[in-house]
Amino acid sequence: MASTLDVEAKYDLITRRVQEVLGGDLIKAILAEGRLPKAYWGTAPTGRPHIGYFVPLTKIADFLRAGVEVKILLADVHAFLDNLKAPLELVAHRTKYYEFILRTVFTSLGIPTSKLIFVQGSDYQLTREYNLDNYRLCATVTEHDAKKAGAEVVKQVESPLISGLLYPGLQALDEQYLGVDFQFGGIDQRKIFTFAELYLPRLGYAKRAHLMNSMVPGLMGGKMSSSDPDSKIDFLDPPEAVKRKIKKAFCEEGNITENGLLAFIKAVLIPISQLRIERRKGETGVDSEEGQGAIGDQNPFVDDDAPEGTMFTIRREGKFGGPPSHYKDYQELEDDFAAKKVHPGDLKTAVNKAIDSLLAPIRKAFAESPEWQQIEKLAYPDPNAKPEPKKKKEKVYHPPPPGKGKNAQVTKTPAESSEPPPPVGTDTQPGAAGEL
Amino acid sequence: MASTLDVEAKYDLITRRVQEVLGGDLIKAILAEGRLPKAYWGTAPTGRPHIGYFVPLTKIADFLRAGVEVKILLADVHAFLDNLKAPLELVAHRTKYYEFILRTVFTSLGIPTSKLIFVQGSDYQLTREYNLDNYRLCATVTEHDAKKAGAEVVKQVESPLISGLLYPGLQALDEQYLGVDFQFGGIDQRKIFTFAELYLPRLGYAKRAHLMNSMVPGLMGGKMSSSDPDSKIDFLDPPEAVKRKIKKAFCEEGNITENGLLAFIKAVLIPISQLRIERRKGETGVDSEEGQGAIGDQNPFVDDDAPEGTMFTIRREGKFGGPPSHYKDYQELEDDFAAKKVHPGDLKTAVNKAIDSLLAPIRKAFAESPEWQQIEKLAYPDPNAKPEPKKKKEKVYHPPPPGKGKNAQVTKTPAESSEPPPPVGTDTQPGAAGEL
Repeated sequence: MASTLDVEAKYDLITRRVQEVLGGDLIKAILAEGRLPKAYWGTAPTGRPHIGYFVPLTKIADFLRAGVEVKILLADVHAFLDNLKAPLELVAHRTKYYEFILRTVFTSLGIPTSKLIFVQGSDYQLTREYNLDNYRLCATVTEHDAKKAGAEVVKQVESPLISGLLYPGLQALDEQYLGVDFQFGGIDQRKIFTFAELYLPRLGYAKRAHLMNSMVPGLMGGKMSSSDPDSKIDFLDPPEAVKRKIKKAFCEEGNITENGLLAFIKAVLIPISQLRIERRKGETGVDSEEGQGAIGDQNPFVDDDAPEGTMFTIRREGKFGGPPSHYKDYQELEDDFAAKKVHPGDLKTAVNKAIDSLLAPIRKAFAESPEWQQIEKLAYPDPNAKPEPKKKKEKVYHPPPPGKGKNAQVTKTPAESSEPPPPVGTDTQPGAAGEL
Repeated sequence: MASTLDVEAKYDLITRRVQEVLGGDLIKAILAEGRLPKAYWGTAPTGRPHIGYFVPLTKIADFLRAGVEVKILLADVHAFLDNLKAPLELVAHRTKYYEFILRTVFTSLGIPTSKLIFVQGSDYQLTREYNLDNYRLCATVTEHDAKKAGAEVVKQVESPLISGLLYPGLQALDEQYLGVDFQFGGIDQRKIFTFAELYLPRLGYAKRAHLMNSMVPGLMGGKMSSSDPDSKIDFLDPPEAVKRKIKKAFCEEGNITENGLLAFIKAVLIPISQLRIERRKGETGVDSEEGQGAIGDQNPFVDDDAPEGTMFTIRREGKFGGPPSHYKDYQELEDDFAAKKVHPGDLKTAVNKAIDSLLAPIRKAFAESPEWQQIEKLAYPDPNAKPEPKKKKEKVYHPPPPGKGKNAQVTKTPAESSEPPPPVGTDTQPGAAGEL
């Protein structure tokens, strides 16, 4: 890949590793005209973001490297509705906190952010035009179609709220109002995306393309209680907390189907390793200066003496010790783990080391930014308060969160085993993030 | 009734003849404090308004006479959604046309209009605050509750649109944003009203009182086709058209249950007759100047030589001729009609004469206002075009009209026999007024 990518290279970079592309021709046509497409990905700023966010961000890094203008929608209106007890002011602080985290992740990875734009939902979702379009949609879309569109991302409860029917339409309108060419999300958004493809043209707006990541189970495995504060790794967790949490992660010898660590390696660590290897060779994206502003260790997760082409190295320690294993791709590693050639302890150590190297520059940036520290206090106040006991949601005050990109990378309910438990801090926020 | 009404007289005037009052104590408390309550009634400016509007307007006349500040909500946003093919510009003309008609009706009846305020939905329903509250409601109200609330006024179809679930909430918010103490509508709005009483307080807003008129069948009876252009009497119909339509009205000897003429006498003609008699005696509302600006004949629908206390006179003509019958109240007339002592022909003649006297000043005001004439052309263009054949509503483009006060005075579907057919002009407007 040269620093000036051709059309095909850009398209490949934009679409690599995604599970499905709808409307790829649209993206190709834009590239063929010499233009660069615009994209959006949305998340609702509710609970503290956890390192599961590396999954969509790693893909978004590809978009930015390919020169795509990426809008990250911080859906503050949705976050407000997600928990009507959180006042708008608190949501505003959380919105800023999310931007700090997400921007820092890109910086730490050396991804150019000149075409990265953060947009707040409230910037346009409460305007006259948007709302008239929302009403137009509501007078066009049947309950049946809206329910079907939201089936995967809107929490299915016995007494569903009206809001659950609005989210697919609002997410469709966002494509128009953000002026993008494609939307990115998890494959769980597929019905929302095809809904948008069907209904935007009925309002006289263009149909957009859609890129979908496959679903990635939570890093910690699906066996842990959602009320366990150790069930998510926070971006700002100190090394000892990361170590403790990974030690507790569910990882059974030979079990590759319920294995959040393997999934994280596949979706995050290997892509980042590959990015670093490419950059070492001078294979940057459209910005040849890429990587120069990166903070922290920029080494791939590979031993120095690993053979050419290695993407991930696992060392063996202690009583299972032996020479390290070098993997050219994820599949080799998975096969070895299935064959019990890789011990869970060594896998955990490798992942722990990699996460440490990813989080170190983020922690450092936080430590050096009094502004960010202040926002963190305002966004997630009183972290030492005794958590309230987990209660059943009441009918009126605790609506399910909106069907935003928030959960783009995770599956739906803990009952379905592969979902990561909600982020740390959720206990004190009824109805908050991660529970959709 | 003196020109300075006491608290009880005002309350009686406000609530007389309504079928049900919810929260009457609230109104009494406001009056007891020496304040005057504020009220709202809403209608969506879609098809040409017909004389069925006399029903709510006659009751609103009582409010105005009692000093109530009355806001008439011309729900233009709803009208737009009601028929997505009618551009906003057309709706704007219709909104002006409705205001001309409604204002002129009050003027013609000599009702003081200094406290009558016309509000357009678009003045506030597309603002940031209103829409955030709408979203809050949607994140609070279950589909089940919204559906239940709209059961009487939102058309029940096989594939209901999302909009049908929004209308109850929007109508509740209107009470808050119009700053009123009570809302007035037909008894078919009861579930919408109790919904508002339940949910506004959950948003932190005050619960309002609700006054409900009983349902009044259409003047022309429920037996006529909704595609019959003669099925409604327009406010601007010339005398010969009124005569032709009334002649065609369903009115069976002795049948008091399916009789739009009797219903119109009860809900409109006797109240207006009573108003005129009261005023002759100096019994005005709070405005002692009341009636001085009235245009047209202000005589009650009573023969000059009728005995004191007569509210309605029916003359006998032709082969059924004889002395006129004078009625002190509606019940006497209904009893006589049931007993076949009043012939349908004589009933029609009496109603025809009364309607003529009501419409004459309105026609005159129209004839004298080039501005109104211009608006009429813009609002309902090309009246001589061949009406399109009546089609089944398509899923996408012809949503059912909103659950606004529009139908406050009529029942739901033609199938239920007592509904008046849609107003003249509806045929050329798919999904337009009167079909909800």
